[in-house]
Formats: sequence, C-alpha cells, structure tokens
Amino acid sequence: MYSFANDYSEGACPKVLTALIQTNNIQSDGYGVDVFCQTAANVIKKTIQHDDVDVHFITGGTPCNVIAASLLKAHEAIICVETGHINVHETGAVEATGHKIISVKGRYGKILPEEIRKVVAAHADEHMVKPKMVFISNATEMGTIYRKEELTNIYNTCKELGLYLYLDGARLGNALIATGNDLSFKDICDLTDMFYIGGTKNGAMLGEAMVVRNEELKPDFRYLIKQHCAMLAKGRIIGVQFLSLFEDNTYLENAKNANVMAQALKYIFAQFMIPMYIDSPTNQIFPVIENSLLEKIKANYKIIEWGPYDESHTICRFVCSWATKKSDVQDFYNDLVTYVNKK
Amino acid sequence: MYSFANDYSEGACPKVLTALIQTNNIQSDGYGVDVFCQTAANVIKKTIQHDDVDVHFITGGTPCNVIAASLLKAHEAIICVETGHINVHETGAVEATGHKIISVKGRYGKILPEEIRKVVAAHADEHMVKPKMVFISNATEMGTIYRKEELTNIYNTCKELGLYLYLDGARLGNALIATGNDLSFKDICDLTDMFYIGGTKNGAMLGEAMVVRNEELKPDFRYLIKQHCAMLAKGRIIGVQFLSLFEDNTYLENAKNANVMAQALKYIFAQFMIPMYIDSPTNQIFPVIENSLLEKIKANYKIIEWGPYDESHTICRFVCSWATKKSDVQDFYNDLVTYVNKK
Amino acid sequence: MYSFANDYSEGACPKVLTALIQTNNIQSDGYGVDVFCQTAANVIKKTIQHDDVDVHFITGGTPCNVIAASLLKAHEAIICVETGHINVHETGAVEATGHKIISVKGRYGKILPEEIRKVVAAHADEHMVKPKMVFISNATEMGTIYRKEELTNIYNTCKELGLYLYLDGARLGNALIATGNDLSFKDICDLTDMFYIGGTKNGAMLGEAMVVRNEELKPDFRYLIKQHCAMLAKGRIIGVQFLSLFEDNTYLENAKNANVMAQALKYIFAQFMIPMYIDSPTNQIFPVIENSLLEKIKANYKIIEWGPYDESHTICRFVCSWATKKSDVQDFYNDLVTYVNKK
Amino acid sequence: MYSFANDYSEGACPKVLTALIQTNNIQSDGYGVDVFCQTAANVIKKTIQHDDVDVHFITGGTPCNVIAASLLKAHEAIICVETGHINVHETGAVEATGHKIISVKGRYGKILPEEIRKVVAAHADEHMVKPKMVFISNATEMGTIYRKEELTNIYNTCKELGLYLYLDGARLGNALIATGNDLSFKDICDLTDMFYIGGTKNGAMLGEAMVVRNEELKPDFRYLIKQHCAMLAKGRIIGVQFLSLFEDNTYLENAKNANVMAQALKYIFAQFMIPMYIDSPTNQIFPVIENSLLEKIKANYKIIEWGPYDESHTICRFVCSWATKKSDVQDFYNDLVTYVNKK
Repeated sequence: MYSFANDYSEGACPKVLTALIQTNNIQSDGYGVDVFCQTAANVIKKTIQHDDVDVHFITGGTPCNVIAASLLKAHEAIICVETGHINVHETGAVEATGHKIISVKGRYGKILPEEIRKVVAAHADEHMVKPKMVFISNATEMGTIYRKEELTNIYNTCKELGLYLYLDGARLGNALIATGNDLSFKDICDLTDMFYIGGTKNGAMLGEAMVVRNEELKPDFRYLIKQHCAMLAKGRIIGVQFLSLFEDNTYLENAKNANVMAQALKYIFAQFMIPMYIDSPTNQIFPVIENSLLEKIKANYKIIEWGPYDESHTICRFVCSWATKKSDVQDFYNDLVTYVNKK
Repeated sequence: MYSFANDYSEGACPKVLTALIQTNNIQSDGYGVDVFCQTAANVIKKTIQHDDVDVHFITGGTPCNVIAASLLKAHEAIICVETGHINVHETGAVEATGHKIISVKGRYGKILPEEIRKVVAAHADEHMVKPKMVFISNATEMGTIYRKEELTNIYNTCKELGLYLYLDGARLGNALIATGNDLSFKDICDLTDMFYIGGTKNGAMLGEAMVVRNEELKPDFRYLIKQHCAMLAKGRIIGVQFLSLFEDNTYLENAKNANVMAQALKYIFAQFMIPMYIDSPTNQIFPVIENSLLEKIKANYKIIEWGPYDESHTICRFVCSWATKKSDVQDFYNDLVTYVNKK
Repeated sequence: MYSFANDYSEGACPKVLTALIQTNNIQSDGYGVDVFCQTAANVIKKTIQHDDVDVHFITGGTPCNVIAASLLKAHEAIICVETGHINVHETGAVEATGHKIISVKGRYGKILPEEIRKVVAAHADEHMVKPKMVFISNATEMGTIYRKEELTNIYNTCKELGLYLYLDGARLGNALIATGNDLSFKDICDLTDMFYIGGTKNGAMLGEAMVVRNEELKPDFRYLIKQHCAMLAKGRIIGVQFLSLFEDNTYLENAKNANVMAQALKYIFAQFMIPMYIDSPTNQIFPVIENSLLEKIKANYKIIEWGPYDESHTICRFVCSWATKKSDVQDFYNDLVTYVNKK
Repeated sequence: MYSFANDYSEGACPKVLTALIQTNNIQSDGYGVDVFCQTAANVIKKTIQHDDVDVHFITGGTPCNVIAASLLKAHEAIICVETGHINVHETGAVEATGHKIISVKGRYGKILPEEIRKVVAAHADEHMVKPKMVFISNATEMGTIYRKEELTNIYNTCKELGLYLYLDGARLGNALIATGNDLSFKDICDLTDMFYIGGTKNGAMLGEAMVVRNEELKPDFRYLIKQHCAMLAKGRIIGVQFLSLFEDNTYLENAKNANVMAQALKYIFAQFMIPMYIDSPTNQIFPVIENSLLEKIKANYKIIEWGPYDESHTICRFVCSWATKKSDVQDFYNDLVTYVNKK
C-alpha cells in the first residue's frame, strides 16, 4: 500500500544519508557545537544572505515552537490562526510553557494584519494577557503561501505594535519553490524576527534550523534548547544533514520534487472533475472526493481524511515529498482510472 | 586530537547505521507507531522478560526525565542525589514542568533508602511539596553501579512509602555488563516503576527506550511524549535503531567494549601510580592527575576536567564507548609513557 | 460620583463586618484550619444539603479557577465559552498552570452540550490536548442564568464523556435568587463535580468557598491552595465571613437586593425606551445607550462601557450589589429624567 | 489555651481594624488602583525615602515570592539558603512557575556572599540553569537579622555578578526594630532590587506591600499580580490597612511590642537555665526544652516543636506579636514556675 499520507514516510534523502554515513566515524564535540553544525550555520547564513543571525539546530518543529514561546515573559501571549499547528496539533505544548495562544480566523490559513490589530486593541489592560508574538507558517497548514506584500504588511504591523513575528517553516522549501511565490530566503529573514527552516519534511531524518535575527531573542538561546528537550548529545547529526541540504541546491530541489508531484496529482484529479477544497500550490493538496470512490482509493493508498465535506463527499489530504516518484503518481492515475470506470 | 571526553563523539555503531540505510526508503507511519517501533518494542519486552510493559521511543535522556516529571500532580516532587543529572545538568528542565527536586547527599552517586525515608518524614504537611518519585541512574553519574540488594531495598522503600521509582538508564548497558554487576534487564524492570534504556550513549545516533511497568503511569503516555517535544515525525528511525541493537546481543556488546576499554585505561593509570577519585567499573573513570602531566595529555587528548582535587592535582573524566578501539588505548599508553618520562 | 461599575466597590456588608470585629481578638489556628472555617464549612454543607463534600476557603475567584486547572494532568484541557472569565479576564492564569483552554461560542454566555460533544469528538488523538474539564459560570459573564434542565443536560453530557464539570459561582447568589431560576444550592452541588460560592461580590471583603464533591478531586486539595497563592495565614477571616453569610439567609438576601436594584434600573431604562443588549435577570444589566446621553450619565456615574453597539450607541454595563440603596436608584432615575429632557 | 505558636493568631490590630470599619462604605475602584492604595503607596515611599519605586499591594507572602520568581526568564534560577521559606514552606510554588531554586547552607539563616559566588561559578554553561536572583529574608526564618555591612556585601556581590537581590520582609518590622539592628527602611530599599514589607504578621488582616526599585522589574508588574492570583477585587482593603500602619509609627510599634514580649520570654527561660538554640533578637525565639517540662507547657500553651535537640530535649519556637500582652507573658512565667517546681 503506497502512502500519500504525509511527507515523512521515508528516511533521509540519498544525499543526506550519504553525508551521515561518510561523517559517522569522525569524532566531534557534543550538543551541537561541533564543526558540522558550525559549517552548516555558515552555509545557511550565506543562503539567506544574513551574517547577523544566530542559527541553531533543533530536533523538531514542536520544540522550535515551544522554544519560541519560552522566550516570552510570563504574561505574554501568542497570536495565530485557528488552524495554526501550535493551536491544534502540538498537544498544548505552548500552553505547557505557561503562555496563552489567542486564535483568529485567518483566511486560507493565513493571518491578516487587521486581525492582529484587533487582538492587540482588545487586550487593553492587566486583566488580560499581553499579546507579544505572532506565529505564522509558510507554507501554511492548508498548503497556501504568503505573498511578499502580505508578509511585509504583517511584519510592519508587528513592528508598529511591538510584536515579534515568528515563522514556522516546517515546509518553507515547498513555499519558496512554489509557483506564484515571490519571497526569497533573504526576504523571510528580513521580514521576521525569527524563523525556522524545516528539515524533517524535506529530506532530513530529523532536525530543523532556527534562525534568530532579532537581537532581543538571541541571548542564552542554547539554555532554552536544552531546557526544552531539543538538544541532542550527537547534535552533529543535524548539522551534517543541513550542511548536505544547503551546501548546494538540494534543499530546494527536494521541495520542488514534492511540489511538482503534488501538482501532478492535482491535475489528475482535475481530469476526473474532482475539485480541490482549497487551492494549494505546494506539496499538500486537498481534493474533495466522493465517498464510494474514496473507499476504493483507501483500499490501496494511505491518505488523510481531513473531514467531511457533505453527506457524500470527504475533504482529503494528499502529500508528496522528495521521495515521491513520477511512477508513484502514474500508478495512482492508472488506479484512479480503474476505480472511476468501475464506479 | 583524540577524544576520551564522552561516549557520544561518533555517530551510530556500524550495525545500527546499516539498519538505518537498509530501511531508509521503506515507507512507514509517522510519530513512532510504525512497524519498526512495534517490532523493537516486542524485542525489548522479550529481552527484559516482561510482556506487561509499554515501551516508547523518545528522542533523548532529558525528554525521558521531563516526561517522568510530567506524570506527577502539581504539588508532587522528585527525590534524587545531589549529583543527579536532572538536578544539575538539564537546565532546570524538570522544574520547568513545575515540579521541585529534593536533593540528598547519596554515597558514590547512589541514593540510600534512609535518605528517602528522611525526606518523606520531613515533608509532613501541605506547606511543603509531597515527595512522589525517586530518581536514580544506573550506571550513576560517577560511573558506579547499583547492586541487586541495594536496588531491592530502594524499591521496597519506595513501595512502602507510596513513591514511584524511576531509573535513568542512559548508561544502563554499561552497568549491566560491568564487573561486579548482579542485576539483569529483568531485575531492572522488576525493581522499578519505569526506566529507560539509553541508546544515544551506546551505539544509536539518538534515542532512548522508555519502559513503563506501573499501570498508573501508562495511560495517555504518548500525549506527554508529544507535549514535551520528544516525538519525531520520522519516529521510525529510533525504532529501527533499537531493533538493530536488541535483535541480537549488540547492545551489551557495545557496552562491553566501552567498559573494557575504560578499565584498560584504569589499568594504565595504575601502572603510573595515578589513583582514581572513585572506583568505577563502567565506561567512565575518574583519574586524579598531576597538573603538569595533565597539560601534556590535554595537548593531544580531549578529556573532561571534573574539578580540582588539590592545588596540584585535578580530577579528570575519561570515557570510552562502543567506538573506542584497542589501538586508541594503546596509543594513549604510549603517549603517557612519553609524557611521564619527559616530566 | 456614584458607581454602578461593579459589585465590589464597597467593603463588607454590615453583618459580615460585625462578625470580623467581634472575632478579631480571638486566637485561632492559621491557614484555614481554624474553628471558624470548620463551622462555616459545616453551615455550607447544611445549606447545600451535602455532607459528602469538602469545603475550602480561597482568597478569590481567579485562584479558585487556577486550582481547578491545576487538578488536571499535564495534557488535559478545559472547555469554556469565549466570554468565559478564565478565557479573557484572568491574564492567562489557567494557561500559566500549563493547561490549554478550548473556547466555544456558547449562547447568551452559556455553553451548549452539543458544543462540548463537538470539542471532544474533534480531539481524537495524542497530537491534540485531551479535554477533561468543562468550565461554566452561573450567573454568566452576561448576567444570564442556567435553568435546571440546561445544567442537567450539561452535567449528563460531561459524565457521559468522562469530563469534570466545574462551576464558577462568583455571582452564584445572584443566579439562585433571580426571577426565573429553578436551581437550588443542592442542585448546583448535585449537578457539578466542583463549584465555588462567591463571597467577594456578595458581601464579603474577600473570599470564596470551594465545594468539592467528586472524590477524585478531593485528595491533597490543600497543597494546591497553598501552591497557588490562595491560602491566608489568617485564613480565619474568610471562615468568619462565610459563617456570617450562611448562618442565616444573609447570603441570598444580599444577592436579592443586588438583583432587585438592577431590575429596577432595567425598568427605568425601559421607561425611556432604552433597550437591553441581553436580557439578564441578575445584578448586571446591559443597556444600549445613545452616546450623547451616555456622556451626561458618565459625568455623574461610574459605569462600564462594554463596547460599541453601533455608531451612535454603546453597550453599557450597570451592576448593583448588596450595597445599592433604593435612593441610589431613585437618584439615578431623577438624573436620567433631567438628562433626557435636556437632550 | 494560649497560643505562642505564631504571629498570626489574631485578626487586625485595633488601629487597622478601625480604619477598615471607617472606610467600609466608601465606594472605590477595584483591583488596587483606588485612592487608598495610592495614598498608602505614597506614605510608604515617604517612609522608605524613595520616590523612584513602584509600590504594589499583594495578598500574601507566597504570592509576593511567586511574582518575584515569575519575573525571571525560563532558564533563570533563584539562590537561597536551605531554610529559605520558598525552599521549604511554599509547596513548591516557585518551582510551579518553572524556576529552579538553588539552595546553599547559609549561617544562622543568612546567606553568605561567598556562597553566591560559588553557585554562580559552578553554573557555567547552558546545561545548567542560570542563577539570576538571590532571595533573602529579614528577619530570617531563624529570627536572626542582617547587619548593614552584611546586606551591603551581599548586594554588591549581586550587582557584580548581574543578579537581582530580592528581600522577603514578612517580618521586616521585627528586624528593623530589633536590638542590634543598624538598617533603616531606606537602607533596605537602597540595598535590594525589590522587597516586600510584611503586613500579615505585623497587624494587618492580610496583605503585603511590594516595593520595586530596579527599573528592569517594573514593567507590566500588575499583569503578574493578576496572573498569580494575588489581586483582590476589593484591593482597597490592603491599601486601607497599610495606610493605617504607615501614616504614623504603628507598623514599628506593633513590631516593637512583638520583639519586647519575645525577649521577655527569652529572659524568663534564662532564669530557668533553659538555653536558646539560636540567639534571635526578634519576635521568634527557639528555647531548647527538656521533654517532660515541654509536656506540661503544651498542656496549656500552643507552641511549635521545631525538632528534636537530643533524646531528652526539643527545640521549640515561641512567637509573639502586636497582640501579645504583658499579662500573657507574666502568666506564662507563673505557669513555668509551677511546672518546674512540680518537676
């Protein structure tokens, strides 16, 4: 049974795996202060065209977000959209650090500057939490991406209101390589206070690279990594992987394959008049599938059922990755032809 | 420069690395519910001769300890020795979950039943925290090991007093294979409520296996793994590694090599009349080295300076691992001969 | 300038003040285990017709709610309506204990059983928090009250779903004495797992009485009171006050005066065709006032502006208490006549 | 049975009670921003000769200490002596905010500058918490007091090491009025970053006055009071009490009575050759009493048994307050004569 359920069904992409093998027996310092991490940090700084940042390697996305929250003072809160990963899918990890998340509707998974303003205006006194950080994802949980104008407006709003803007880049590669994207790595760094570049979902076994630009957020950062369970004794294995991904164009190439395969699936669905719930240009797509057809698909493919659309249709999620092959997509097309004809 | 600084200077041991390579492209479910993790859990259950346990794979030792703490109620506290890892070297991660650590002196890194009794007796009312969990390590931070009689006494004391006994097994293999050890994997499980088997320091790239025997601690355990940043999207990579370590005798063989090499170093030091600060039978040894000799050693070897012994001597820590080769130890012997003769 | 801004503008009601004076020089034990607290607890047990409960005296409403949250396990969450006091007006105190609040729309400030079901259904796995407690207020933040049928349905839903039902009774007296109420003190206890009887807003200087009926929530309760800053050295002063309020009918009489005065204000507004934003039968009313009239009122009266209704009208909050006198209401009527005629 | 068990056995001192009565029916704003609190703050500023401070009124000592802890960043820790109130008698309330307490031995209940230095030196990297605040009490838990030279040395050490110095003044009056004291209110403010003036144990029903001098600790302070359950709706009742205590010399006079009575008890014990465990000049004394005599005392007096001294003697704690009368002490003397003669 083939899985389109997510972009972390396989291990590492071939180049990253090779790097892990080749460096395996070299001795290095522990806890992420080794030469691999240092070199990887430098390569990332070059990629994002920012020398003025700190780069830290973290075990996963949830710890990145938890560390971001732990930078706040006791009474400060985070604003994000209702569908935000921290608001739904991290088992209250942010609240477990003591901080409230204030959720807003958003549009297509993206937050709007006026929503931020409204929250700040409504939190006027010491009987309420004090909003201090805005959390966004790019690509979003819905597969959509921020345009440069949108991100600029959000960032300017944050600066005007004294808020930090933090970007969860679990699928940042998929966003930056997407059709319609006009943001660069440098833009992401220019237009946020802190963000992370996702490795886990784009070719690494595990690991994310946190980039801290705002000077206020830099001090004692490694204390927080350690305290929040996100520092590996063999921290070098994340450095090795990011070095491998960023020393050439592998990171974006991985993301490109994922996007292209997902868009190919979208095209296939379109041929069968199966509509999308939301138009995503990245590696996640959300077809609305008739239930009897869905049963047939599920007999041979792992996918995610996002929720009911109506009585006879279900919103589904199909995800591709660096590991998705043309032949996998072709096989799915062939199977779909069979399913539909049998219907 | 060769490093005896710790047991996590290299990547994975050869067999584990091979397993990661061989399984890399196989699709699996995310978040540690895959077939590799399930099989690894079963193999561990067989090794410890306990079918009645839950086995969970966790990213590292600090998250294991944090999850243990998070099982407590708001007012409950943990007892451990002053040198306990959670008390010193985890950046307050346990307290960050809201729980106090009550430290006692211990002896040779080990806690004494009478210390536990004394703490419980002293915490008599609701103006003080309520001790509920005892934390021990085997091997301890000082490289020492618990004898079966000692562990039995501690466990019985805990049961009498209504306390959980939790054992940090970051170096459990080194303890169980040590000369003088009379505990088995089964004993460890019989004589604790929960413990973890350390992978990171014994041949894995990362990862530990938490074993939960006490029924009270089992429900909703995976919620805590997720909340405390210790669940990987590609959770399979820890399962794969533990399967590789436990499907045959690799785990204990790795530990044996580490111990044998460390004991060989001890023998070398003895030849030069260099005493040990504490007598450890495991893979960490603590020679007391004269400072001018130490300078010469440090010019070619990375080691840890544990602290000053007196004005002219320093307590040092040398650690060996699965990766330490006879030739590394022989080289050190040869160099030591040279250093001492030059002295 | 007279204040209708809230129900805590004055100190204690006369009977309570007298009790404090009369007992002032009597020595008693500290921290709420004194004879006044014990007697008050017994009187409350009699009032609510429940011998099987624990009664604790707490400094205020926020600490009551924080203690309720601290009874949960690390990954468990609270469900409440968007306007819930814990969700808006307690500076994230619940989240500061590490627990997420899941908010639902509600209707007229009241939660609906189907909303509870929907939240529980949506929180299906360990990547999300686990809902475990439902928080309601009676009277609600909007001045409305629960009918017995409503509360019964909510309680049954909670029991079916394995949730605790906790009721914030900051204005419980105002609810129970309101026109249209069909709940008794005994019903409140029968139909919740834990609730508190508000003292601060109904004649006490400070203090609330927490009533714990569910056996699971009883153990070690005083540890939580202490840890969460809600235990007074001179705990007796809360016991003395509750004894004074409950040894006869003072508690409900205080509430009745507050309600009657607020309803008189409502009648006055009606005479001037000033509508209510929401129909509240308790001591808070929400008239929608034209802005130029509002300016005149504000020149002589402190009231709360709840928010804009439209461009020319504002939703206001008027609150009465045990201390509001008929003459205060009459004065307001006279002033209103003047303002309106001048208009 | 007369109680020497503590200094909070009675209600408010007469002057404070009168103030509460006289202001009871005056309407005021809620939550501690009323005119009584403002005036009380001004009177305190005058007393301590500091205009540059913020003064906040808090419900009790534990909340004061919890708020102090909540000012720290996630990885920062507090240093205090083993007997420190936060370390022993607050049910882990500080750790419940996420912060570790590092305890040192101290001498006579007082911390030593060299202990602070040693802790800071030992906490050298991100694997350990970062010490950031020193917590002291004056008078200490053992009834002892800090000399000006001692406090100056501690403060200078803190400033040199980048630490905040916070002083718990639950019994500050007793310290400042003690024989041998050479510190003034102004000195306390000069030589700390933040401290609180205890009301509960010196004539108030409840309440403490937090004085914040360090600019870094001032912003958003009221958010923390609210979040940590220490803000009363009728906050005015603490302001009224502190105004009453500080508008004249009542605060120190209350403390003086307490000290004088305790010292009279000490003199009585000396007459019977009953030694003190520690020499305290304040309102707590610690006689070492032979056990058969102790039984006779306990039949008529409530006192605290601090712990066993040897097989036949017990360390006891006797405490006096503003409420202790000469006749109470005289009665005790008479009873003691009887007990000893009967012996």
